[in-house]
Amino acid sequence: MAPGSASEVATIIRSCAAARVGVVPYGCGTGLVGGQVAQNLPRPVLLSLERMNAIREVLPEENVILVEAGAILENVQEAAARAGRLFPLALASQGSAQIGGNLGTNAGGVNVLRYGNARDLCLGLEAVLPDGTLWNGLTRLRKNNMGYDLRNLLIGAEGTLGVITAAALKLFPRPLTEGTAIFALEGGVDRALDLLALAGDQVGQGISAIELIHHTGLTFLAETMPDLRQPFAAAPEWSVLLDLGLGAQQDPTEALSALFEAALDRGLVTDGVIASSEAQRRGLWAVRELIPEANRRIGSVASHDIALPLGRIADFVEAGSAVVAGFGALRINCFGHLGDGNLHYNVFPPKGGAASDYDAIRRPLTRALYDLVHEMGGSISAEHGIGRLKVGDLERYGDPAKLAAMRAVKAALDPAGIMNPGAVLRVPE
Amino acid sequence: MAPGSASEVATIIRSCAAARVGVVPYGCGTGLVGGQVAQNLPRPVLLSLERMNAIREVLPEENVILVEAGAILENVQEAAARAGRLFPLALASQGSAQIGGNLGTNAGGVNVLRYGNARDLCLGLEAVLPDGTLWNGLTRLRKNNMGYDLRNLLIGAEGTLGVITAAALKLFPRPLTEGTAIFALEGGVDRALDLLALAGDQVGQGISAIELIHHTGLTFLAETMPDLRQPFAAAPEWSVLLDLGLGAQQDPTEALSALFEAALDRGLVTDGVIASSEAQRRGLWAVRELIPEANRRIGSVASHDIALPLGRIADFVEAGSAVVAGFGALRINCFGHLGDGNLHYNVFPPKGGAASDYDAIRRPLTRALYDLVHEMGGSISAEHGIGRLKVGDLERYGDPAKLAAMRAVKAALDPAGIMNPGAVLRVPE
Repeated sequence: MAPGSASEVATIIRSCAAARVGVVPYGCGTGLVGGQVAQNLPRPVLLSLERMNAIREVLPEENVILVEAGAILENVQEAAARAGRLFPLALASQGSAQIGGNLGTNAGGVNVLRYGNARDLCLGLEAVLPDGTLWNGLTRLRKNNMGYDLRNLLIGAEGTLGVITAAALKLFPRPLTEGTAIFALEGGVDRALDLLALAGDQVGQGISAIELIHHTGLTFLAETMPDLRQPFAAAPEWSVLLDLGLGAQQDPTEALSALFEAALDRGLVTDGVIASSEAQRRGLWAVRELIPEANRRIGSVASHDIALPLGRIADFVEAGSAVVAGFGALRINCFGHLGDGNLHYNVFPPKGGAASDYDAIRRPLTRALYDLVHEMGGSISAEHGIGRLKVGDLERYGDPAKLAAMRAVKAALDPAGIMNPGAVLRVPE
Repeated sequence: MAPGSASEVATIIRSCAAARVGVVPYGCGTGLVGGQVAQNLPRPVLLSLERMNAIREVLPEENVILVEAGAILENVQEAAARAGRLFPLALASQGSAQIGGNLGTNAGGVNVLRYGNARDLCLGLEAVLPDGTLWNGLTRLRKNNMGYDLRNLLIGAEGTLGVITAAALKLFPRPLTEGTAIFALEGGVDRALDLLALAGDQVGQGISAIELIHHTGLTFLAETMPDLRQPFAAAPEWSVLLDLGLGAQQDPTEALSALFEAALDRGLVTDGVIASSEAQRRGLWAVRELIPEANRRIGSVASHDIALPLGRIADFVEAGSAVVAGFGALRINCFGHLGDGNLHYNVFPPKGGAASDYDAIRRPLTRALYDLVHEMGGSISAEHGIGRLKVGDLERYGDPAKLAAMRAVKAALDPAGIMNPGAVLRVPE
């Protein structure tokens, strides 16, 4: 069903609650954990908000945009840009992902370091709760302590506690000057954190992104996209892409040059490429953004969206390599959002090998890596959510007191269990 | 009771749950809405976390600090500073307020514009839930989408859904250069938003605070603290204090001068004072920070902690004056955190009058102002919470669907109703 208004959504949910029929909110299907597809259950109603795609209002003087849940992320970004503002949520699927899905899964992306996750970008929500009542929480307020934080309870709940129908989102000043560089790190990945601290001291909060790139990523790009311009003649073991967004009074190229010199003095970096034009900036970003596509062309044995405390990343990289080596001569492409401790840790067959030859090890390999992440205080779902694929993982690694509280909240708000049944939490026996 | 560890807290809560005795978490009593004092109920256990005041760990390389809930805010700030980092939560009572109380009430303060509320500064929590189970959610992760957001549910719940025993908090690079100015606005308060937008374009996210000051505030300071250095020879109708915190590469005094020139060109300001030394910075901040003390000395008829959509502030100031005028020749001191839309809107007797002469109008005046705030899409509790004083206001102005969801969550997590009974939500009949 594709309702055209929040009140139509409410009518559908009320009917489903009365008939005890499940409702599965469905965006455009870009989610990566099977959050959208119900299995082994009575046939649910698929609810699409694609018709509710209006940008209701742009308020540049308030740095706020009001959008319906079916609005495509890229359209929200563009509406903000036309008003001279930035909506900073940015991810690979932005051309088709809907904002309601981004909120339902608390999406991350490349700008989290500076601007936060989807959760942090949301001021207010309009939503239909599982009993079919419409919550009008579409406030544009920056501060509001009137009761429990229902907004954040719905965000990241993956449609299991209600259907988000509209959102008030934060906008930001557009950085008037931007600069991008890729620096080759001296030695291990731990130097990247020193570099991040140094950059914080030098340019304050002007760092929009710091993305980790491993040698394997550059090698995969060279293998699958030989025409792509590589940043270095010889790929360094580890490099980072740094993106600055500054005010009109500053020069990001100068800031990056000064940062590079300071980092060189401290023995943090060995080499660097600083973009001197917008075309060069795009070229450097293409290196980072094409890594997932290179991964797809190579074909992974297993992929993992994990987060670690920043101080444990280097330990994990070392211990993770040992874990993977225990399963054979596999290749690891570890890349991701360094400033957030969010690694995309993907494992590949040796050169010339086929991923399908490694089907048998996929589960035990992932289990061994997740166990390691968990031991190190990390998360086995950093930005993709739980969906249906990771329900068992959440049961295994989640805190028991929290899981019990989650089940109690779910039962209280959705006693009939109609909202996205089987996602996040197992359907009770 | 003053337990010394989370497991002692858990034991107390389990006992209280079994005996159905209320538990009232009590910080240092700096809260302003009576959240801490139970009334008209069987005598509850007062739970103080003052002994749990350890700074457990400072991790500057991760920009994280782990603290127990009884730690005094100022001690947390100082521990961060010793590690070369900033913990940005800052408010008047920071010398005695405990971090657990700050989180329980989702405290705000002067740096919300740049760094967010207490909620936004928290990465993880350790808490005892109402059934006495200990939730170990003390993660240092920047991204973690493993299930419902229990953290944000407890933050701002004012102790009604559990007792926070420890928190992992975000630290930030310390701005290496800081600058402060007070600008007199040309015309009305709406110019302040134009100034904020201009500042955002000029210095990016370097604006740490933008605080609104009314003529009445400067007059009260002159009346009650004649030795305090006033920023202007003649107090302007509206002025704003601007605080910048920048990186080592920038000069905030130059940035403020350039901003002043640009604002003058655009007709936004008429006069300005830019601090040229740390002593002058402190002097300008003293003007803003002593306004609440001046208010106390004058003696208010009624005070209100409200938030408005930024675009409605000017309308509210005009309409609010008319509302107050309807109750007599009263004086209004409106000041606060402009960038957050958070106004402290306090009403005073005419010069020479005593607040006690106006006891009869306190409630109807507040009601009339709250009705206006509500009509304009604002909040009647921006940063002080609900406590017991505003339970009726929450029922009047809160969204009915949200209130029903809050009651369901409360009943699900605290079926015996022992946690801070009567705060936020009325005790069910």
